[in-house]
Amino acid sequence: MPLTLAELAGRINAELRGDGDIVVSSVATLQQAGAGQLGFLANPKYRRQLATTRASAVILAEKDVRFCPVPVLVTDNPYAGYALAAALLHPRRSPKAGIHPSAAINASAQVDKSARVDAFCVIRAGARIGPRVHIGPGSVIGEKVTVGAESRLVARVTVLAHARIGERVLLHPGVVIGSDGFGMAEVDGQWRKVPQLGSVRIGDDVEIGANSTVDRGALDDTVIENGVKIDNQVQIAHNVFIGAHTAIAGCVGISGSARIGRHCTLAGGVGVVGHIEIADHVHITGMSMVTRSIHRPGSWSAGTPLMETSRWRRSAVLMKQLDKLARRVAELEKNMENK
Amino acid sequence: MPLTLAELAGRINAELRGDGDIVVSSVATLQQAGAGQLGFLANPKYRRQLATTRASAVILAEKDVRFCPVPVLVTDNPYAGYALAAALLHPRRSPKAGIHPSAAINASAQVDKSARVDAFCVIRAGARIGPRVHIGPGSVIGEKVTVGAESRLVARVTVLAHARIGERVLLHPGVVIGSDGFGMAEVDGQWRKVPQLGSVRIGDDVEIGANSTVDRGALDDTVIENGVKIDNQVQIAHNVFIGAHTAIAGCVGISGSARIGRHCTLAGGVGVVGHIEIADHVHITGMSMVTRSIHRPGSWSAGTPLMETSRWRRSAVLMKQLDKLARRVAELEKNMENK
Amino acid sequence: MPLTLAELAGRINAELRGDGDIVVSSVATLQQAGAGQLGFLANPKYRRQLATTRASAVILAEKDVRFCPVPVLVTDNPYAGYALAAALLHPRRSPKAGIHPSAAINASAQVDKSARVDAFCVIRAGARIGPRVHIGPGSVIGEKVTVGAESRLVARVTVLAHARIGERVLLHPGVVIGSDGFGMAEVDGQWRKVPQLGSVRIGDDVEIGANSTVDRGALDDTVIENGVKIDNQVQIAHNVFIGAHTAIAGCVGISGSARIGRHCTLAGGVGVVGHIEIADHVHITGMSMVTRSIHRPGSWSAGTPLMETSRWRRSAVLMKQLDKLARRVAELEKNMENK
Repeated sequence: MPLTLAELAGRINAELRGDGDIVVSSVATLQQAGAGQLGFLANPKYRRQLATTRASAVILAEKDVRFCPVPVLVTDNPYAGYALAAALLHPRRSPKAGIHPSAAINASAQVDKSARVDAFCVIRAGARIGPRVHIGPGSVIGEKVTVGAESRLVARVTVLAHARIGERVLLHPGVVIGSDGFGMAEVDGQWRKVPQLGSVRIGDDVEIGANSTVDRGALDDTVIENGVKIDNQVQIAHNVFIGAHTAIAGCVGISGSARIGRHCTLAGGVGVVGHIEIADHVHITGMSMVTRSIHRPGSWSAGTPLMETSRWRRSAVLMKQLDKLARRVAELEKNMENK
Repeated sequence: MPLTLAELAGRINAELRGDGDIVVSSVATLQQAGAGQLGFLANPKYRRQLATTRASAVILAEKDVRFCPVPVLVTDNPYAGYALAAALLHPRRSPKAGIHPSAAINASAQVDKSARVDAFCVIRAGARIGPRVHIGPGSVIGEKVTVGAESRLVARVTVLAHARIGERVLLHPGVVIGSDGFGMAEVDGQWRKVPQLGSVRIGDDVEIGANSTVDRGALDDTVIENGVKIDNQVQIAHNVFIGAHTAIAGCVGISGSARIGRHCTLAGGVGVVGHIEIADHVHITGMSMVTRSIHRPGSWSAGTPLMETSRWRRSAVLMKQLDKLARRVAELEKNMENK
Repeated sequence: MPLTLAELAGRINAELRGDGDIVVSSVATLQQAGAGQLGFLANPKYRRQLATTRASAVILAEKDVRFCPVPVLVTDNPYAGYALAAALLHPRRSPKAGIHPSAAINASAQVDKSARVDAFCVIRAGARIGPRVHIGPGSVIGEKVTVGAESRLVARVTVLAHARIGERVLLHPGVVIGSDGFGMAEVDGQWRKVPQLGSVRIGDDVEIGANSTVDRGALDDTVIENGVKIDNQVQIAHNVFIGAHTAIAGCVGISGSARIGRHCTLAGGVGVVGHIEIADHVHITGMSMVTRSIHRPGSWSAGTPLMETSRWRRSAVLMKQLDKLARRVAELEKNMENK
């Protein structure tokens, strides 16, 4: 949807410097942008691309204005301004309401008239699909599941266990919500399944990436609060609680009954053991394992640095013998004193 | 299904202390339970909840009886007793037999009359679906696959490569069984695919979690023995062997031709390299990498402890320079001798 | 397809020693092979199986000929020779052209007459499906997606975001191509979605394993070059570039805008942070985290060795106190000088 720079500046709350009548109709990188396109500069690494950009305008911060030869939209948070501008210039088409004739919908399910249900979907007894919801092709909505207004299940999404999905939730292909938790009791060396009877509650404005999984609680519910963003291939076990506005990157695994605070970030590949608590505003760096509760805000890490394999092999031998090295140092200290 | 405490005590082999005529009809946590509900205490962390529980009865161990103000079912293994009681009070409904009219079933496939096949399933030539099996919606059963009695494929499960699935097997949504193994030969810097011709054999009473994958063998079969329990997003490569009653938590990856013993546990995020053997009764802690065979029972670990990032950075520098530190200690030892 | 050893030797460019009229019709391991079957020896670990093999012939290297009691096909690269022989003896059946009547295909999509589309597939507006392509059951092909000749989507594959898939590409069950990247801008402690507008380009002869995910670019495309091989449950974030003939094993995660060179190998469970570059011919060992750019070929590692848990616990304490140990050594050095 084309907009003048003047309109855009008003909508994203930026200060325009340049001709407000110029029209832009799409976004692009500084390098790729051409006439009618809007660029942005949020990462200083790309500042040198300003000089040669052919964008019609650029969103950037005050400190970069002087490097930019084309009209600018100045804002304190250029990345957020860009996000908003991109959403305005590239609005999602509302899904056309309607139910594909192939969809298998139980008579007792309630599908709002404004919702869209695509081909080969299954919607079971007692499910409720809210206004303007889009259930993409091949999705399975289990008994008594509710999906709030304007949520979108892109394709091949499964929601079971009476889960309640909030409004404006976005579930990407292959997501599974409400699968059984991994609950077993050992009896004479064999595993007896512990029935998984809880549900899943997902707040508003949550996004969950492709092929991620969220198990139902064992008794109480697994809970994901408002505004949580989850990337692809993340595993959330039974009875996990994730506080509002926390972001979880790809390939993270969170074990049962772990409680993650609000406004946390878990970088890619992080693992969290079960039954621990993480405070609000905690940040975990990539591939770290959280083995105990964290009671105060801050950034936490684990792991060893990358080395050339030949050198790493020598280092690994020494890691195994750290106790020996420590004993040798203690021995030296004793000898030193005796001299 | 409501039961009296007397009936329940008999069925789970627990000792009743209290009024045997009291009826319970569902399970709940000590904190949430109300009248007609059965609680349990398996983790000492929750003992203090006994005092205020409103459960009609509680399953617990002898040592906790004195803390409990309501009737109790006493057993040596309260968690196992709870698992059994929960299964009795919340029995799974048997699936109604029948084939959804949309299912695409090859004429040469054999589906038992007591089985259930849901909407949008594909069952190919020569497949055999046993008694009381439930094939959930959107599942794909490849040629000559067999699924044993009372197994349940919850939804959107794919089984290929002539795989043989045992009885009472539970496959959660998104599971893929029998995909090609990652077999390639390098020829002049390019990868030539090695045809994957083996199959997958899965024993009885196996459970596999959402979006987990089990590749077919390259020539011989990938084998998962009876009673193995596998969590979500686990990857089992070609020709892996997993011994009976082993449990594998979420996000584990097992490389080709690894052989895992019986009664092992692999915690979340563990990785196992290819072509190694792990003995029976081996336990691997979370996110450890198993790089060589383990020939005796026991618990094994790898990884570094979680630290505040600022401190971890200093520590990481030292990890890279362990060889230098070791040389300095050796030098000191030499000097000390010469003094 | 049965072949004589003479024919086979010619086709795989091996030297035959033995009766060229012998016919083989399938491949097997040295241990399992019987009459009419072809074995191979590529891993010295299995050499002792030669003596007792009942294979009709064996593919092996010159150095192993003297251990083999049956006819041999001698080649410098027995594993590559085997791969080729297996493909000749076990050719994939070409899929029968045709569109399953249940498939939901938009009128403006172009499906080549020689292509096959299985049950419950969705093909949206403007998509183009090339010659001899096989779209397996339950797959979803989004708007304007193109799939090149002879590619095969095994089952339940999702391709969105106008992605362009090359020729002879093999996508295993559960693969998702073109899901939204994980792009968010923080505004007042909440996450604002950054519209994901780019696409995905996948070259020829690429293979992607079960339940792997490849996100669309934010603005520019995510690119996977020719001949790249990707195993199961791999996550490729937005705007990643993967150079030709690179192989990526299971459970790898690659963060946004990372650029991986050609002819690289990433072993299982590796993680790569975003916005870095890895040169051609770089090899990363299992479960290592790549935290910075790598500018020259070679092998790189991270992680700690596996230890018995009791010993690892002591070692972990020392890892946390490496700075203290280093200070003690420095102190000793100072004292030594002063003596």
